[in-house]
Amino acid sequence: MAYTIQQIATALGAQALGAADLEVDSVAEPAEAGPRHLALAMTPDYAETLGQGRALAAVIWPGADWQALGLRAAIVAPRPRYVMSGLTALLDPGQGWDTGRHPSAVIDPDAELGEGVSVGPLAVIGKGAKIGKDSIIGPQTYVGNDAEIGAGAYLREGVRIGARVVIGARFIAQPGAVIGGDGFSFVTPELSTVETARATLGDPGTGGAQSWARIHSLGGVTIGDDVEIGANSTIDRGTIRNTTIGNGTKIDNLVMIGHNVSIGNDCLLCGHVGIAGSTRIGNNVVLAGKTGVSDNVFIGDNVITGGGTIVLANIPAGQVMLGYPAMKMETTMEVFKGLRRLRRLFDDVSHLKKTVSKPPHNT
Amino acid sequence: MAYTIQQIATALGAQALGAADLEVDSVAEPAEAGPRHLALAMTPDYAETLGQGRALAAVIWPGADWQALGLRAAIVAPRPRYVMSGLTALLDPGQGWDTGRHPSAVIDPDAELGEGVSVGPLAVIGKGAKIGKDSIIGPQTYVGNDAEIGAGAYLREGVRIGARVVIGARFIAQPGAVIGGDGFSFVTPELSTVETARATLGDPGTGGAQSWARIHSLGGVTIGDDVEIGANSTIDRGTIRNTTIGNGTKIDNLVMIGHNVSIGNDCLLCGHVGIAGSTRIGNNVVLAGKTGVSDNVFIGDNVITGGGTIVLANIPAGQVMLGYPAMKMETTMEVFKGLRRLRRLFDDVSHLKKTVSKPPHNT
Amino acid sequence: MAYTIQQIATALGAQALGAADLEVDSVAEPAEAGPRHLALAMTPDYAETLGQGRALAAVIWPGADWQALGLRAAIVAPRPRYVMSGLTALLDPGQGWDTGRHPSAVIDPDAELGEGVSVGPLAVIGKGAKIGKDSIIGPQTYVGNDAEIGAGAYLREGVRIGARVVIGARFIAQPGAVIGGDGFSFVTPELSTVETARATLGDPGTGGAQSWARIHSLGGVTIGDDVEIGANSTIDRGTIRNTTIGNGTKIDNLVMIGHNVSIGNDCLLCGHVGIAGSTRIGNNVVLAGKTGVSDNVFIGDNVITGGGTIVLANIPAGQVMLGYPAMKMETTMEVFKGLRRLRRLFDDVSHLKKTVSKPPHNT
Repeated sequence: MAYTIQQIATALGAQALGAADLEVDSVAEPAEAGPRHLALAMTPDYAETLGQGRALAAVIWPGADWQALGLRAAIVAPRPRYVMSGLTALLDPGQGWDTGRHPSAVIDPDAELGEGVSVGPLAVIGKGAKIGKDSIIGPQTYVGNDAEIGAGAYLREGVRIGARVVIGARFIAQPGAVIGGDGFSFVTPELSTVETARATLGDPGTGGAQSWARIHSLGGVTIGDDVEIGANSTIDRGTIRNTTIGNGTKIDNLVMIGHNVSIGNDCLLCGHVGIAGSTRIGNNVVLAGKTGVSDNVFIGDNVITGGGTIVLANIPAGQVMLGYPAMKMETTMEVFKGLRRLRRLFDDVSHLKKTVSKPPHNT
Repeated sequence: MAYTIQQIATALGAQALGAADLEVDSVAEPAEAGPRHLALAMTPDYAETLGQGRALAAVIWPGADWQALGLRAAIVAPRPRYVMSGLTALLDPGQGWDTGRHPSAVIDPDAELGEGVSVGPLAVIGKGAKIGKDSIIGPQTYVGNDAEIGAGAYLREGVRIGARVVIGARFIAQPGAVIGGDGFSFVTPELSTVETARATLGDPGTGGAQSWARIHSLGGVTIGDDVEIGANSTIDRGTIRNTTIGNGTKIDNLVMIGHNVSIGNDCLLCGHVGIAGSTRIGNNVVLAGKTGVSDNVFIGDNVITGGGTIVLANIPAGQVMLGYPAMKMETTMEVFKGLRRLRRLFDDVSHLKKTVSKPPHNT
Repeated sequence: MAYTIQQIATALGAQALGAADLEVDSVAEPAEAGPRHLALAMTPDYAETLGQGRALAAVIWPGADWQALGLRAAIVAPRPRYVMSGLTALLDPGQGWDTGRHPSAVIDPDAELGEGVSVGPLAVIGKGAKIGKDSIIGPQTYVGNDAEIGAGAYLREGVRIGARVVIGARFIAQPGAVIGGDGFSFVTPELSTVETARATLGDPGTGGAQSWARIHSLGGVTIGDDVEIGANSTIDRGTIRNTTIGNGTKIDNLVMIGHNVSIGNDCLLCGHVGIAGSTRIGNNVVLAGKTGVSDNVFIGDNVITGGGTIVLANIPAGQVMLGYPAMKMETTMEVFKGLRRLRRLFDDVSHLKKTVSKPPHNT
C-alpha cells in the first residue's frame, strides 16, 4: 500500500520537507533502500549509508540537511524511537488473514461474538465465551468457556485462553501463548522437607518421603486493557483469587507468570522472565531477560532489573537491580569488578599473612 | 454446585461445627466472601478480615472461636495447606467441556479408546494409540501413533504427545505441553571444539569449523502414574533407552527435560527448570524455579535447590543447594553476604598492604 | 524393518566382521539387547554388560575381539558418537504419519505445494505459501501467508510459521516451535527510566510513569539450509531488516531468539538459551543451556559458553566463557574456587587487621 510523505508525516504528527507528494510503499534501512522505500536515517550515523542506497525519501534527525543528503523529501523525527511506533503501525501488513468466520472453526452456539469479529480456520470458541467487537481470533486458537475478551483483540495462531479468563480491550497475544493454565501448587500430608528447609534456611529436617497432593486452581486470570503477551508464554490461574495483570503491561516470549501473581500497569517483562506464585509487582516495572522472582515477594513501582537477575527478596520502589542475588546495580557492578580481581586478593592476603607472621625485627 | 458444610467436612475428613446443613457454592478469601461462600480463614491472621466480608461459614484454624468470629458454621483445619487440596478438588468446576467425542476430532480407526473417554474438538489421535478409560482428551490435542495413556488422564487444550510415548494412570498435562519431541543430539565428524573445551576445562583446541550431524532419537518417553506436566513444557525422547519420569512427579510450566534423562518418584520441578541430556535425578527431589542441571550428572534423593541454582556437578542425597555454581545453601548464603561486603574487603586489604609495607619503626 | 549387518556397515562406511548376513531390527544398550538387536558397545566399558544381554551383533570399539565377546557379527566404529548419527538415521521409525494431504487440512488454493509434499490432519497453509518438494507438514501445523519453506522440510505437530518467513532446505522443527512472532519492542513518548538507567549504569532518573507504544515488526525471519528448531522455541521477526539464522545451525527446546538477531552457520544453541534483540552471533558458536545474551552485543566465531552463562558484553572470537557475568572459563573456575573459600578470606583479613593494629613492640 502506498503513502505520500505528507500522509506519513501527518499520521506521525511530524514535519514533511521537500516533495511531500512523493509516494513510498514501505520502510528500509538506508543502505538497502530503493526509490519506493522510506529510509530510516534517524541519527547522524546514517549520513553515509544513505548514499549507498537509492532512497528518495527518509526519516532524518533534527537539523539534518535533507537536500545535501541527496533526498527529494524527508520527515524530521525529534525522538526517533518514538516515531518508529507510529510509522510501523501505519505500514504493518499484518498476517493477511481473511475476515469473517472460517467454516472450519468450531464456535459454540452460546458464544457471543461482537460485530466485526473474525475467526480463523480450526479455531475453537467455547460455550458462554464473549469476544468484543472487531477482534481477530486467529487460526487454531482456543477460547475457553465463559472467557471474556474485550474489543479489538488480536490473537495470533495457536493462542490458548482457558475457561473464565477475563481480558480487557486491545489485547494482543503472540503464537502459542497460554492464559489460564492451572497453578502449580502441591502439598504433602505432613510438613515437607521444602517447608522445613525454607524455615531453617537450609536444613531439610527429617520429614520422610511423601507424595504431593494437588491444590486445584479455582481462581481465574484478569488482564487489563492494552496488554500484550509473547509467544509460548504462560500465565496461570489463581488458587482462590485471580492472577491479575494491569493495563498497558507488555510481556515477551517464554515468560512464566505463576498463580496468584499480581502485576501492575505499564510493566515490561522480557524473554524468559519467571514470576513465582503469589508475588506482587507494582507499576512501571521493567524486568530484563531471564529475570527470576521468588514466590511471595513484593517488587515496588518503577523497579528495573538487568539481564539474569534472580530476585529472592522484596525490592522497594525505584531500585535498579542486577545479579544473583539481586543487589543494587552499582553494588553488583562493583562485585563483578571484584570477582575479576578475586584471585589477586587471595594472593595479596596470602602474602600479607606471611609478611605479618614474620617477627618485625627480622626484616 | 452447592455443598453443605457437613458434606465438605466429611469429604475432607475434618470436623463440622455449628449449622452443618448450611450450603455454600464456592470458596473465597475472607474479606471478599459473600453468604454463599466458604471463607478460607486458616490462620489467626484472618480473624480481622473475616469481619470485612459477609461469610456465614469458614474453614478456621484449630482453637478458633467460630461463634465469636460471627460465623454460623465452620470447618476446622489442622494442616491448612493440606485441607486446601481436598477442598479445591471438591469445588473445581474444571473447563466445562462436553463429554463424548466431538465430530471434528480426527481419530484413527485403529486407535483404542477406553470406556468413557472424551475427545474434544479438533483433536488428533493416531494409529495404534491406546487411551485408558475415563480420560479427557482436550480440544486441539495430539496423541501420536502407538502412544499409550493410562486411565483417568486429563489433557488440556493443545497438549502434544508423540509416537510411542507411554504414560501411566491419572496423567494431567497443561495447555501446550509437549511430550516426545526428538532429543537435541549432534556430532561432528572429528573431535569438536566443545568436546575439547570440556576435556581441558576451557581450551577449545584447534579443531576447525565443522558441521553438525544429527543423532536421531530412537528411544521414547516413559512416564509413571499421577504425573502432571505444566503448560508449554517439553520432554524429549531418549536416544536408545527411554527418557523416564517416575510416579507422582509434578512438573511446572516451561520446563525442559532433555533426552535420556531419568527422574525419580514424587519430585517437584518448578517453572523454567532445565535438565540437560542423560542426567539422573532421584526421588523426592525439589528443584526451584530456573534451576538448571548439566548433562550427565546425578542428583540424589531428597535434594532441594533454591531459585536460579545452576548445577554443574553431582549432588549427593539430602543436600539443600543454592547458587551459581550450586553449593550448600548455607555456604551460598555466606557467599551472598560476603559479596555485599566485598568492596570493603578490598579496601581493608589495600589498607593493610600500605600499613605493613611501612617499616615499623616509622609508625 | 530388518537390516543385515553388511547393509548397516555399508551405510555407515564402516567395516563388517563375522556373519555379515545376520539380520537386526533395531539397536539397544548391551545389557538389554536381544538376538534381533544391534548392541551399542562402542567403548571397552561395555565389554562386561555385553555378556549380560543376548546380542548376537554389536557395534564395537576399534581393536575389540568380537569373537571373545561372544558375538557372531560386529561393526567397528572408529569415532563412536559419529557412527551413532548414521546408525540412528537409518533406523529411525519416525512418527509413522500417512503420506498425502489429509482431507481435514485447510490449504489455501493459492498455496504452492511441491511434489510429494504431505500435509497432516488439521494443518493450515495460507495464501501464497510455498512448500518445497518431499516436505512433511505435520498435524495441526500452521504455515502463514507467503511463507516459503525449502525442500525436504519436516514439521512436527503444532509447529507455527508466520507470514513471509523464508526457510531453506531440509528444515526440521519440533512440536510447538514458533517462527515469526512479532518482536518485543516498545517505546515511551519521552526518555524512559530504562534508557536513563542503562546510560548511567543504575540511575533511573526522574522520568515519570509512562505508557509503552508498540513498535510493529515489519521485517521477517530468514533461515538457512539444514536448520533444526526445538520444541516450543520462538524466533521473532525483525523490525525493519529480517532476523536471520545461518546454514546448519541447530536450536534446542524453549529457546528464545529476539527480533533483528543474526546467528551464523553451524551454531548449537541449547535448551532455554535466550538471545535479546539485535544481537549478532558468529559461526560455529555453541551456547550451553540457559545461556542468556544481552541485546545489541556481538559474539565472535567459535565462542563456547558453559551452562547458565549470562553474557552482558561483546565476546571476541574463539573464547570459552562461563559464569554471571560471562568471563573466560578459567577465570570463572578460579572465581568459583574463591567463592568457596571466601569466608576464610574474610576471617584471614579480620585476623590480619587485629594483628597489624597492635603496636609491634607489644607482641
